[in-house]
Amino acid sequence: MPAQANLVMLNCSLMKPVRSFASDNNAGVHPAVLRAIAAVNRGHVVGYGDDPYTESAVRNFNRHFGQDIKVFFVFNGTAANCLSLKAFTSSYEAVICAEAAHIYVDECGAPERFTGCKLIPLPTENGKLTVDAVRSAYHGIGDQHHVQPRVISITQATEVGTVYKPDEVQQLARFAHERGMYLHVDGARIANAAASLGLSLRHCTRDLGVDVLSFGATKNGAMGAEAVVFFPKQKKPGVPDFSPALREVGLSDAFKFHRKQGMQLASKMRYISAQFEALLKGDLWLRNARHSNRMAQLLKRELNKIPQVKIVYEVEANGVFAQIPRYAIATIQKRYFFYVWDEKQSVVRWMCSWDTTEADVKQFTNFVRRAVS
Amino acid sequence: MPAQANLVMLNCSLMKPVRSFASDNNAGVHPAVLRAIAAVNRGHVVGYGDDPYTESAVRNFNRHFGQDIKVFFVFNGTAANCLSLKAFTSSYEAVICAEAAHIYVDECGAPERFTGCKLIPLPTENGKLTVDAVRSAYHGIGDQHHVQPRVISITQATEVGTVYKPDEVQQLARFAHERGMYLHVDGARIANAAASLGLSLRHCTRDLGVDVLSFGATKNGAMGAEAVVFFPKQKKPGVPDFSPALREVGLSDAFKFHRKQGMQLASKMRYISAQFEALLKGDLWLRNARHSNRMAQLLKRELNKIPQVKIVYEVEANGVFAQIPRYAIATIQKRYFFYVWDEKQSVVRWMCSWDTTEADVKQFTNFVRRAVS
Amino acid sequence: MPAQANLVMLNCSLMKPVRSFASDNNAGVHPAVLRAIAAVNRGHVVGYGDDPYTESAVRNFNRHFGQDIKVFFVFNGTAANCLSLKAFTSSYEAVICAEAAHIYVDECGAPERFTGCKLIPLPTENGKLTVDAVRSAYHGIGDQHHVQPRVISITQATEVGTVYKPDEVQQLARFAHERGMYLHVDGARIANAAASLGLSLRHCTRDLGVDVLSFGATKNGAMGAEAVVFFPKQKKPGVPDFSPALREVGLSDAFKFHRKQGMQLASKMRYISAQFEALLKGDLWLRNARHSNRMAQLLKRELNKIPQVKIVYEVEANGVFAQIPRYAIATIQKRYFFYVWDEKQSVVRWMCSWDTTEADVKQFTNFVRRAVS
Amino acid sequence: MPAQANLVMLNCSLMKPVRSFASDNNAGVHPAVLRAIAAVNRGHVVGYGDDPYTESAVRNFNRHFGQDIKVFFVFNGTAANCLSLKAFTSSYEAVICAEAAHIYVDECGAPERFTGCKLIPLPTENGKLTVDAVRSAYHGIGDQHHVQPRVISITQATEVGTVYKPDEVQQLARFAHERGMYLHVDGARIANAAASLGLSLRHCTRDLGVDVLSFGATKNGAMGAEAVVFFPKQKKPGVPDFSPALREVGLSDAFKFHRKQGMQLASKMRYISAQFEALLKGDLWLRNARHSNRMAQLLKRELNKIPQVKIVYEVEANGVFAQIPRYAIATIQKRYFFYVWDEKQSVVRWMCSWDTTEADVKQFTNFVRRAVS
Repeated sequence: MPAQANLVMLNCSLMKPVRSFASDNNAGVHPAVLRAIAAVNRGHVVGYGDDPYTESAVRNFNRHFGQDIKVFFVFNGTAANCLSLKAFTSSYEAVICAEAAHIYVDECGAPERFTGCKLIPLPTENGKLTVDAVRSAYHGIGDQHHVQPRVISITQATEVGTVYKPDEVQQLARFAHERGMYLHVDGARIANAAASLGLSLRHCTRDLGVDVLSFGATKNGAMGAEAVVFFPKQKKPGVPDFSPALREVGLSDAFKFHRKQGMQLASKMRYISAQFEALLKGDLWLRNARHSNRMAQLLKRELNKIPQVKIVYEVEANGVFAQIPRYAIATIQKRYFFYVWDEKQSVVRWMCSWDTTEADVKQFTNFVRRAVS
Repeated sequence: MPAQANLVMLNCSLMKPVRSFASDNNAGVHPAVLRAIAAVNRGHVVGYGDDPYTESAVRNFNRHFGQDIKVFFVFNGTAANCLSLKAFTSSYEAVICAEAAHIYVDECGAPERFTGCKLIPLPTENGKLTVDAVRSAYHGIGDQHHVQPRVISITQATEVGTVYKPDEVQQLARFAHERGMYLHVDGARIANAAASLGLSLRHCTRDLGVDVLSFGATKNGAMGAEAVVFFPKQKKPGVPDFSPALREVGLSDAFKFHRKQGMQLASKMRYISAQFEALLKGDLWLRNARHSNRMAQLLKRELNKIPQVKIVYEVEANGVFAQIPRYAIATIQKRYFFYVWDEKQSVVRWMCSWDTTEADVKQFTNFVRRAVS
Repeated sequence: MPAQANLVMLNCSLMKPVRSFASDNNAGVHPAVLRAIAAVNRGHVVGYGDDPYTESAVRNFNRHFGQDIKVFFVFNGTAANCLSLKAFTSSYEAVICAEAAHIYVDECGAPERFTGCKLIPLPTENGKLTVDAVRSAYHGIGDQHHVQPRVISITQATEVGTVYKPDEVQQLARFAHERGMYLHVDGARIANAAASLGLSLRHCTRDLGVDVLSFGATKNGAMGAEAVVFFPKQKKPGVPDFSPALREVGLSDAFKFHRKQGMQLASKMRYISAQFEALLKGDLWLRNARHSNRMAQLLKRELNKIPQVKIVYEVEANGVFAQIPRYAIATIQKRYFFYVWDEKQSVVRWMCSWDTTEADVKQFTNFVRRAVS
Repeated sequence: MPAQANLVMLNCSLMKPVRSFASDNNAGVHPAVLRAIAAVNRGHVVGYGDDPYTESAVRNFNRHFGQDIKVFFVFNGTAANCLSLKAFTSSYEAVICAEAAHIYVDECGAPERFTGCKLIPLPTENGKLTVDAVRSAYHGIGDQHHVQPRVISITQATEVGTVYKPDEVQQLARFAHERGMYLHVDGARIANAAASLGLSLRHCTRDLGVDVLSFGATKNGAMGAEAVVFFPKQKKPGVPDFSPALREVGLSDAFKFHRKQGMQLASKMRYISAQFEALLKGDLWLRNARHSNRMAQLLKRELNKIPQVKIVYEVEANGVFAQIPRYAIATIQKRYFFYVWDEKQSVVRWMCSWDTTEADVKQFTNFVRRAVS
């Protein structure tokens, strides 16, 4: 009944939906974040981060991740990733990542350009790198003709809505450290991963051996605020010290220069800091993440009721990837803008946000049902 | 009477001033800008600039600068400068600038790193490049051993608070265009310059032959919003077409990729756009600029009353540069943080902001008077 | 009988072979090339290529490729490739190549570092890119998040000793030009390919639609001499002009600066030019290539007589790729140094050179026979 | 008598001089170097430097500079300089040099592009940096807005034919090391400097505190061969260890990758190695340098006899810089190609080479005498 369906569509478009499922960055700013921004708008403070609001935001990071971390605020996720990688690499080195990694496919070559490094893309089954996959790309060591792998970069939660289990991260960290490499986590959705795993932010990063984290706040309800968090090498009694100490010496000293040279130092820093403050001082980060994860579960359940729709990845964070009939894509997109993930397989990506409501999900899945039938 | 002076200081510090004269980026956000940000915080919109708020902000730029410009929003001034320069240069080319230029001394080598180009610094008397100075650096053309000058970059208002006269800009533009070069304006304080000259934004940039403008909003009352504005080459009847057309073809197509690869594409763009909207839709940009310029004039007048203080540059925008007794610097800084501009000459920089009050100026100059005496 | 075999090895090593099959760059310099170098060693000439010997070498390139080409000499093949790619790309663009391409795996990331571009590696069956493969990587056009494919780079003869047929090259050129892309040929062994195809150097490059060629002389008997050859866009009556003209304007003007900035401008250029002169003035380039190709055919025939050895790629140029018993590798390497091509598959690479003799092949294959049995 | 002079010119041009005074790189290759190249042209050797000839050349460097140095061969002087600087710098750092430094004015921005660093040019009186000059550029340390000076680069002999005295070098080294900086020497004419000072190569570099040397052979009679020589930090009893040890760890490991990625690894390395062998195994390097220095002294003496010619820098190596009547320049250049050093001051540069003869000098100065009179 496509004719009737089209009619329904037409009617629906008269009442355009307020929220889409296109991306968690299509959502607005959480009211508490806006309030925090307004709250710091008093008088003059020194620029570039030497202000009490930034100091306070850093203390919140310390509370979550430990006193001995180093944290630097930047404008966006691409910058957090590129600067993280730059901190650990020379231009002749390489970064091993999943072939669907944001750093590989969605940053317009920024990581290569900023670091000079080659990114080595590996195919994955579910968006997650494995030690076996990484091992296959770890060769040519010491051979001057070949780039030298120096960083393993994973995305947590992944680009396809899956979440690494703690031991999966740990194994990658161990593999990396045993070979003088580092583990980077693109945490654009680290809050969703932590919520999904039921772990603290620290437990699902630093304590698993992660060396540097791109901490994402923007998709978690902020306006535009990302951070690079460096974790010191881990010394435990009886456990060998895997981390290559040498490069870490002075690393955070160097980083502030890389940030400035990378065009990522905000003059009115306090307005970025306020956003972190709002999310991290209490548990807003967690509530937002849990909510969007829960909406994704609801979305999944509703979609599962539609025979023509097939969920293709485990729904472990706030995204749902579904194979849908090709003919329905344009129809749904006309009302709900979203991205096709895999043209060939007719797989689409639908993301839930901190502000997605149950009603949004119901309306959307009703619409999808009509469009595919 | 240093002892007595110290006592006064001590008393004063009990009532720390709310506003300093350290930098116009130490000021907060204008309330109207904050309101504009809050106003766009409704529902979902597509990310990365494909939203109605950004469309509207671009229309405001069109209204000020013309329909045929191209404008791109970025996070900060360093990025606006680096991306502007990148758009017109190949890595073997060079940018001619004043030796006090922000791009030369205050951006941690970002322009060199992002463009690959050499920056050729020229001494100036008052922060302003002259055609004669530029001519002295224009040589080695076509010689493969030498970098090839491609851009003249000036700062308007300059780093030392002076303002180029229209014909000074025009002469530089003509010199550039006759030689296949471009004229870039670092307009971190372009509003102050326009206000100072009594010209519209367009009259003091595009209409003088400027090819690309780093348009600064942050120091003009925004939270963090800068733009790169490209002006099309100018064709007038009977006037030869100076601009090298070739590079401009497809330039703005290329620019969006440079912005993304330069880590300067905001996902939640609407919150940057809203800031431009607030400043440019009415005349807030002008009121803010006029106010800070007027405060600088007041500051100058008050300082002129202090015999130990000598103003060293013309006060034409919102900054005052003064030679003060060396012993007074630390004392004043203890209460009012600010930057020493020239250590050797004991010259300091004091900037006025959109929110500086007459009372601020009076209190400050009173304090200076006591400190230097 | 490994014990006996070892004994034979031992005896053999008493009379170490003069020539190996490790690489065509392990060979020396052809006597005629040495003589040409000595011949230009007279008096002073202007440096950096403004000398009569270089002029003469360029004329030889003109004779082979046409009067309207542009040719630039550089030190080595990696430079020829990187500079070729740089000439046609902006940093946000991408180069599509085979995953076994020298530029992808054997140049330590130099192409990425020098151009800023991403290299997109595609799997191949026999070292050759196909239009279908390239098409699969041609997407995201105009999307600012994605690098933009600008160059297709193929290696002729390929890294695995196969040779593109003329129509295969033509199809790739057409695919490229229809999309505003360029076709680059890494011709480190272009002489071998031309000899194999029975075509002139021009017929197997420019006339098939190639836009830029890394012309390799070093493996063809030179001491160290490579060239970048630009072909003008092809206009034929009735045929649409595929090439994006814009970028070509002034391209060769720009190139000399890229070469200098790329640290590839020789001061005593005449000694590089003399090498090209020796190879290209007569048919030495062809005789050398034919000879090494013929030796590879002989090597193939001899190896085919050994049941434990399996040739895995068509032998179309001067290389033979063979799967051999894993246990034999170290034994053979002890006497004849060579590279293992594919560790997992136990595939090795044996290259013939301009100076390989029939006796060399016989001795080598005898040794291989004993080692594998 | 310009008319008569012109006649003389005309006659002279019938017997064009074999050798000019344009540059020491206009000279050819010393016969012993050519013979050494021919001598290694026997059979196959492994490429990229793993050959006995390169091993032997390295031993010669060891003999001159010590067993604990690291040496790497590259193609040309620009590469030696860029790679030297790259080894010690991060992209946000800076290199302090003379404003006439080859790295600053004659390498088309290669150092900036390859290292990402800013080069800070300082005016000099005689081509030589002084500690006082360097001190004036050493500021902004630790300030993230400013590039951080990391290397002092001097040229020995300088671009204007002067030579640093041992204690001048030592003072710069001490200044550098006390601040965690390094001292680089562009030794394109290091042999001339050593000969001039009457010191061994080691005494005038390593023993004075130099950290890395661009060792030039090309201008000393080679065909095209330069080397980067790293000296270990110097520990002497009772003397504080100035060198920042940290960066040196693994530095030479990293360097081979930078060389390859910098497109400077020769495949047929033996032919570069042979050139060093010829110069360094005996005292050919010294004889060549002494000879060209002596010719410069002769040139100076002869020019001093011409009243219209004024020598403007001390003649301490193989170059003579002279102020001559502007009208004579073109006339002399028509017969003897050379470079004008300073257009405004009408200062020209005349260089002597390993093959310059006394007769060459006499003929040339006779010609100059006629041209200026």
